[in-house]
This record gives sequence, structure tokens and C-alpha cells, in this order.
Amino acid sequence: MSSSAPAPKRQRTDTDAPYELLYWPGIPGRGEFVRLAFAATETPFKDVSNENKNGVKEVIGLIDASNPDAAGELNAPPLAPPILRHGELVLSQTPAILSYLAPRLGLVPEESEDPDAGPRVLSLALTALDGFSNEPHDVHHPVGVAKYYEDQKAEAKLKAEDYRENRLPKFLAYFERVLDSKSSGIDGWLYGNQLTYADLVLFQGLDGVSFAFPKLIERLKKSGKYDKVWKLYDTVKQVGGVAKYLESDRHLKYGNGIWRHYPELDDE
Amino acid sequence: MSSSAPAPKRQRTDTDAPYELLYWPGIPGRGEFVRLAFAATETPFKDVSNENKNGVKEVIGLIDASNPDAAGELNAPPLAPPILRHGELVLSQTPAILSYLAPRLGLVPEESEDPDAGPRVLSLALTALDGFSNEPHDVHHPVGVAKYYEDQKAEAKLKAEDYRENRLPKFLAYFERVLDSKSSGIDGWLYGNQLTYADLVLFQGLDGVSFAFPKLIERLKKSGKYDKVWKLYDTVKQVGGVAKYLESDRHLKYGNGIWRHYPELDDE
Repeated sequence: MSSSAPAPKRQRTDTDAPYELLYWPGIPGRGEFVRLAFAATETPFKDVSNENKNGVKEVIGLIDASNPDAAGELNAPPLAPPILRHGELVLSQTPAILSYLAPRLGLVPEESEDPDAGPRVLSLALTALDGFSNEPHDVHHPVGVAKYYEDQKAEAKLKAEDYRENRLPKFLAYFERVLDSKSSGIDGWLYGNQLTYADLVLFQGLDGVSFAFPKLIERLKKSGKYDKVWKLYDTVKQVGGVAKYLESDRHLKYGNGIWRHYPELDDE
Repeated sequence: MSSSAPAPKRQRTDTDAPYELLYWPGIPGRGEFVRLAFAATETPFKDVSNENKNGVKEVIGLIDASNPDAAGELNAPPLAPPILRHGELVLSQTPAILSYLAPRLGLVPEESEDPDAGPRVLSLALTALDGFSNEPHDVHHPVGVAKYYEDQKAEAKLKAEDYRENRLPKFLAYFERVLDSKSSGIDGWLYGNQLTYADLVLFQGLDGVSFAFPKLIERLKKSGKYDKVWKLYDTVKQVGGVAKYLESDRHLKYGNGIWRHYPELDDE
């Protein structure tokens, strides 16, 4: 491939540009990880499809399979929401959005203080997403993402059993281990003695699985094995901006998204 | 949480420190994405468990559930390999490792030239990992990660059908769309008119699914709908360092890892 063609000219996004989240309306979903980053830092943002009557059309327009330049000529077309718009930047994929926002919102230690904090916090956030967002989704959709839950209920029961007995305890034990490690410091955050987006992702994941599997979570809490994890959950919930957000109208109820409560998938 | 405790002192890793990959021996797996980053840029690295007789013990030691400080007091303990060691840094999660390596190896446009290239390339790599690595794994393990394939064969057949008919075509169409977009430039790379780690991830994912589903891939290639994607595959294969690596002893054959060939999961 020759390098004859100049790349489109790209510049740093104007820091005064408004932050806009584009996601499906009416459910927390993966958009919630992004909302919490704004909420925790009391950063103004626009939740386009929940604030504008026709906002969802913008989401659909950005993922239009027939339009490679739906996100403008500087940005790859997004496959799916959540999508962040910030000035000229249009960016999809939750971990990419969070790692873009983190240094701007103070949700990661400063590079001058801790040069490799970025990839370290990203690693923790990815693992929290795996265990508390991606896998819980796959529990109710084990064989076909676009098929109805009702058409894969038998398989979902099998996967739910594995999630309850093996996977969820594994991820909880992992984050308890992180909180036991010297790397997390002694203040109870996952990394660097400060609130990072990894804490927010873990908080939201725990909240989601608590909604989806209330009996299971009650049992696991009672085991006493993951007390530091649940303490972190309580602490994040009390962060000023988070507490305010959770009590506001902007905070959406769970529905038919990532975290669903089907009693037959929970403990008996 | 008070801020009374100082975080452990962290400094930028010595650029002369050797790069070490810690992964399961004998299979490409998720370690291959990291190997290709080194190979494409002809960067020396140590493939610990494949080069040292007892190297796998180091991998196992790092993920020891009973040792929160297995990765030293600066690093969170890894949940699973691949793990990168670079001086004091011990880092897990494929996308985090790649985004750490990218600016050091020249696998992403320079920040001074394109300030938001980092998150943009990460987004593309995450989507390629979703479609060509995570989902193909889940095809043969739809209900229990730690269970045998043979014990979930019926469910795997259902998921494989969905992957063949819906998911894989969706991801291929997506990357064809990216290559059709102005954002990718006209040189055939996914982003910024240069080889990035997103291209390497897509290449490896395509190679893996070609091994796992040879008949399906033959059919999809013949459709002519994803010609730019396959052209990218061929181009990456011919990158000097990649070509050399693929012909070397270091390049491992597929086995019982992410990409498995079960004829009953392929097209008939």
C-alpha cells in the first residue's frame, strides 16, 4: 500500500465542545457506564435520545449500514451504540469512550504522576465489563443475540447455572483480590488511591447483576467473601455526583437491556 | 475514603527493558495479537512459556488466586493471560496491552499528528476482537467456559448457525464499511493510512475464523461482498515482519484454543 494519499486532517477536539452520548433511549444499558463518568465528575452532557424527541433517529443514522461516512469523514462508522460525540470526534465502544474521557474528566491518575495508569485502569475496566456486563448479557442470550430470550430459554438456564456457580464468583473474587493487593492502595479504590472509571464500571456492573440476580447476590453477599467489593459499591454510590444522579430523573430503570431479571435464571 | 495513604510510587517503564509475553504455551490464542504487534514491527520479545521449559509456571504464578501481589505491588493481579511484562509493568487484557504497546511500536498514528488516534484505533480493535475472537470462542463454548465442548455440542450447533448466518457476515460487512469510509483513507488500512494494531487484530481474527470455518469463509469470500477486508488480510500477511514471523518456528499451529475447527459447526 503506497502512502500517496494524505490522511484526512485531524486535530484535537475543542475542549469547550459539548459532550453528547448517543444510545438507545429508555434503558441504562452500556450507555450507563458513560453516564456515570459524567455524573461522578458533575460534567454536563447531553443524553441525545432521552432528551430529544427524535434523538434515536440520530443513533440509527450513525449506525446506518448503507452509509460508511455516517460519522463524518474523520471517524470510522460506529457498529453500535454507545457512541460519544465531542466536537469532531465520534467514537464507539464503551472501553474506548471511557479511556478517551478519563484524562479529561479526572477519572484516571495524571500521566505526569503515573505514566502507565491509563492502560492499567483500562485493564481493570475491561475485566469488569467482561464479568458484570458482557457475560450477564450472554446469560439471557447464549445462542442468538438477535433472537428472543423465549427462544433460547433452555440454553439460558444452563448458562445461568454456570454464571451463578462459577463465573460471577470468579469475577467477584478477582476484584476482592485487586482490592486486597498493594496496587490498589489502602483507600478502597481499585487503583491509585482515587476514583477511576474502573470503579464506576465495577459499580454499575454490580448494580446490574444485583437487579438481575437478587437472590444470588444476597447469597454471595452473605458469604462474606467479597466485603471489599461491596464496600466499594457503597462508596461509589455515595460519591456526590453519583448520588445526585441516581436520585434524578435522568437515571433510568432497568428494562430489556443487558441486565434483565428473569426469576428462573436466579437462585431458587 | 481519605487520601491519607500515598499510592505506591510509579514511574515510566525503562524503554530499554525487554518485552515479555506471558501466555499459555503451544497455541496462538489471544497471545497471538500481541505476538503480531512485535512481529510486524520486528521488535524483539520473549515468549516466556514457549521459550522457557518452566515458563508456564510463571504464567500460573501471576494469576495465582491466593496471591493478590503476584504481579508486584505496582500492578493489579492479572485475572488471565495474555500478560505483558515490560520492566516494572505487568499488564493483562489484550486491548490494554495493545494500546500500551501501540505508541511505543509505531502501531498507531503519533499523538502530535492525530491526537485522538489512540481511542479511535482502540475502538476498531475492540470490535474486531468481539467479532473474530470473543464470539468464535463462544461458538464452541456457549454455556460453560470451563466445561468440555462435548458437553455443550447441541448448544454450540445452535450458536454456530447464528454466527455463520448473522454474526460473522455482520462483522465482515462492518469492516468492509470501515474500509469504504473516508476515515480509512485510500491506502486500504483501517485507519490513518498506516498499519495499526487494529489491522493486525483484524488479520489474526480473519485467519482464526478461516481455520475454524473453512467452508463458511470460502462461501463468504465468493460472495464478493467483503473484498476490501480480504485484501487487507493479504496485505498484512505480506508485511515484512509478519511474513517472516509466519514462516518461523515461533508461529504456532491452531489447537484447542479460541479458534477450533469442528466440521459440524462449519457450513455443510
